Amino acid sequence: MSKTNAGRFFEDYAVGDVITHAVPRTIKMGERALYHALYAARHALHSSDMFAQSCGLPFSPLDDLVTFHTVFGKTVPDVSLNAVANLGYAQGRWITPLWPGDTITATSEVIGVKQNSNGKSGVVWVRTTGRNQHGEVLLEYVRWVMVRKRGEGAAPETVIPDLPDAVAASDLVIPRGLDFTDYDFALAGEPHRLGDYAVGEVIDHVDGVTVEEAEHMLATRLWQNTAKVHFDATNRPDGKRLIYGGHVISLARALSFNGLANAQMIVALNGGAHANPCFAGDTVRAWSEVLDVAEVAAPGVGAIRLRLVATKGEAGALRGDDGKYLPEVLLDLDYWALMPV
Amino acid sequence: MSKTNAGRFFEDYAVGDVITHAVPRTIKMGERALYHALYAARHALHSSDMFAQSCGLPFSPLDDLVTFHTVFGKTVPDVSLNAVANLGYAQGRWITPLWPGDTITATSEVIGVKQNSNGKSGVVWVRTTGRNQHGEVLLEYVRWVMVRKRGEGAAPETVIPDLPDAVAASDLVIPRGLDFTDYDFALAGEPHRLGDYAVGEVIDHVDGVTVEEAEHMLATRLWQNTAKVHFDATNRPDGKRLIYGGHVISLARALSFNGLANAQMIVALNGGAHANPCFAGDTVRAWSEVLDVAEVAAPGVGAIRLRLVATKGEAGALRGDDGKYLPEVLLDLDYWALMPV
Amino acid sequence: MSKTNAGRFFEDYAVGDVITHAVPRTIKMGERALYHALYAARHALHSSDMFAQSCGLPFSPLDDLVTFHTVFGKTVPDVSLNAVANLGYAQGRWITPLWPGDTITATSEVIGVKQNSNGKSGVVWVRTTGRNQHGEVLLEYVRWVMVRKRGEGAAPETVIPDLPDAVAASDLVIPRGLDFTDYDFALAGEPHRLGDYAVGEVIDHVDGVTVEEAEHMLATRLWQNTAKVHFDATNRPDGKRLIYGGHVISLARALSFNGLANAQMIVALNGGAHANPCFAGDTVRAWSEVLDVAEVAAPGVGAIRLRLVATKGEAGALRGDDGKYLPEVLLDLDYWALMPV
Repeated sequence: MSKTNAGRFFEDYAVGDVITHAVPRTIKMGERALYHALYAARHALHSSDMFAQSCGLPFSPLDDLVTFHTVFGKTVPDVSLNAVANLGYAQGRWITPLWPGDTITATSEVIGVKQNSNGKSGVVWVRTTGRNQHGEVLLEYVRWVMVRKRGEGAAPETVIPDLPDAVAASDLVIPRGLDFTDYDFALAGEPHRLGDYAVGEVIDHVDGVTVEEAEHMLATRLWQNTAKVHFDATNRPDGKRLIYGGHVISLARALSFNGLANAQMIVALNGGAHANPCFAGDTVRAWSEVLDVAEVAAPGVGAIRLRLVATKGEAGALRGDDGKYLPEVLLDLDYWALMPV
Repeated sequence: MSKTNAGRFFEDYAVGDVITHAVPRTIKMGERALYHALYAARHALHSSDMFAQSCGLPFSPLDDLVTFHTVFGKTVPDVSLNAVANLGYAQGRWITPLWPGDTITATSEVIGVKQNSNGKSGVVWVRTTGRNQHGEVLLEYVRWVMVRKRGEGAAPETVIPDLPDAVAASDLVIPRGLDFTDYDFALAGEPHRLGDYAVGEVIDHVDGVTVEEAEHMLATRLWQNTAKVHFDATNRPDGKRLIYGGHVISLARALSFNGLANAQMIVALNGGAHANPCFAGDTVRAWSEVLDVAEVAAPGVGAIRLRLVATKGEAGALRGDDGKYLPEVLLDLDYWALMPV
Repeated sequence: MSKTNAGRFFEDYAVGDVITHAVPRTIKMGERALYHALYAARHALHSSDMFAQSCGLPFSPLDDLVTFHTVFGKTVPDVSLNAVANLGYAQGRWITPLWPGDTITATSEVIGVKQNSNGKSGVVWVRTTGRNQHGEVLLEYVRWVMVRKRGEGAAPETVIPDLPDAVAASDLVIPRGLDFTDYDFALAGEPHRLGDYAVGEVIDHVDGVTVEEAEHMLATRLWQNTAKVHFDATNRPDGKRLIYGGHVISLARALSFNGLANAQMIVALNGGAHANPCFAGDTVRAWSEVLDVAEVAAPGVGAIRLRLVATKGEAGALRGDDGKYLPEVLLDLDYWALMPV
């Protein structure tokens, strides 16, 4: 028997299976420092214990995307090692903040399978759950990927999960104690409150960042995501290393500070597409569109639903006349964040 | 109203204004590990709790330049986003050490303005103060920058602050408890005490380090300094990213360990010029000149005033016959450090 | 007297001398986060407090190679600044785990000298010992290097230490409390226990990682290893920066997770050769050969002796017909690790 992990193929997923992902991970302040160094994260709640305490939290939680990347990284050896494509996300919810010192574990339940008509691959849906050392759910989300078949066996019965377009505002989970009534807009960096944003408003985040190989590899390893396409320049015929899609999410989220400094915490991931690959040397820019606003049951706190788009050229249109993403679009992400009302 | 920060223009500064800079920042051991990884810092007091305790401190403080960079980074969106040039520093003093877990906030008071004769820009002087979560001053310094005017309005009344050439030795603040009477020169790395240095002595720090894009960007983001010239390769016609001047300060300071291992803590910044820009691929070298020595009121502790020069060629002369910095000079910094007598 | 360290020459080593290496270093979680980011380390015992506790430890120790690199880095200014070649390692043993917050100091005793027949250099053997703040030995190992002579003096009496080929299994030190009886193979990432490995078995670790300049420089600085060949692109005629050999050790060890996920802790270094230099742009791969297995006196714990080979081409043969390492071989390391039986 080979000792190394060949990854799972389409046949290895059956609806109802629960996969325990390997290597629990304790996250502390070192990861936070690296998150700041890798992404220029500046949201005050994730930058300062003092600010977090003024918002009712015991201290500053790790950035919500640290939870996402760490959980995602754990799933890679079991879910995406033989994946042809990462097709989508849905129903993502952050349930409990990640505090320094927490240990993250992750499991995934297979909730859907559908063999492709070519008989060589299929789509697998999994609901992944990240937990802390107390067994509390940190994050849950659905992801679906296209996976190669190992052989030519019969197709399994098709099961396609029912996935709403977005997490309902009423299903958002607000961190215990969060209170924006004494929110300090000067320290947060911008004066704009929820009421200042209009549905349909588009915000160009202005800044750009040119990506280096060392940076995306440091980040991707930090999340213990070891998919070889990100690290091995001999893996593709063009000698390029594919940048982990989550790296672009964090770059774009950090760029979005400029215009959305008060969109403090990400509480839901409604959907997302990695529209085109990103490579070292690309200059990433971002723009956001306000999709919705909602009330939530915490003092001074509201929710804003945002489309976050990362591009490798100038910010601009999203799709061509054919309805397809334009070639310069890297990411189209739909999420809910919390903002002072 | 645009949601993004366009930065302040010359007209937006009035003498007496106090600007609260955004995004307080909690600094812990992750930032220290990164400081070591980015700069090869080796001064024993900032490397080891044990060594710091043998010098009378409760544990090892963060490197003094971590305080400087973090405070400086906070001022960028309010002071230098539309700056044409960073003209100088003066009257910098480190008042309280930065301990792991401290949260840094910063404010700047406008203390001088002078419109340029072209009517299109002006010089602004600010006194910036960084504080910890107890409100204690960590660091204060004066910086002046040339800033673009937005329009063609009348010039404000010129106010030029009176700035001594150097912080007087009697104004240096020595960290509480600091005591070098049991200083372990073997563990510190060099045998030279204050009495071994002569005013006028020049020390070639010998080593060189070739700078990479990923490194200076990681560092600059770590300080939450988001000036786009450092990150966006499409921002300049030549496709180069300008390296944050403070990155060169820390590189040169780390190189200076070799010859100045016992210049343990930086307590004052008398002045400084970023003589020429630094770009990735440059190999940075450094030399120091002893400008002064002084007694201070702490057991076994003395002060040494140093000129620290970083170059991108071989160490050598500073200025040409025309009095201007030679093109290979990157940095000319004047500071006080504490050293065992 | 020059203030900078010119390093020791062959004449400066006398058998019996004990060198105190400079700059004690406190290591905390920041270094661990960086270790993960730099090397994709995934061994569960070093990744998670929870997993470490389930193995009888109070919490997750730093990776064993963090101890090695930090101790090694401290020796560089005193042992290898004028070294022509790093010739070998022997009798390395990890005695006490490195816990976050520990301060590392290091000393080396000269245990052998032998002048080369050319009269221009010689071989020096040192036994290096790293200790924590309690004076407990963390790690000890023998290293020998070829060092330049300063002058043309007479050769010292030759002393060649007696160095066994390997640390005997009975001399391995098992961390206090370690207990693998409740070992969770699913969380650790692979099902293979000691009994599943056969002496002589070879494991291709499959993955590859292309190395960037910024990464190896960040790592090497993190260990306060300041040998200029690693940092200064103007130092060699070919403009290349030589990658610290220990960087390749950690890269290969991390790659070996894929097939040796349960080889949790490194407890002995039997020998090692940096067969060929590694440069940025090289894609590092690794394979392991099982050299031995042994029982140890801790519940559920066994020892596995492994040859770990790093290459810059495809994994393959080790030596040519002439008995010399093939040009693509970077590292040939012989170590003992602990694994559940």
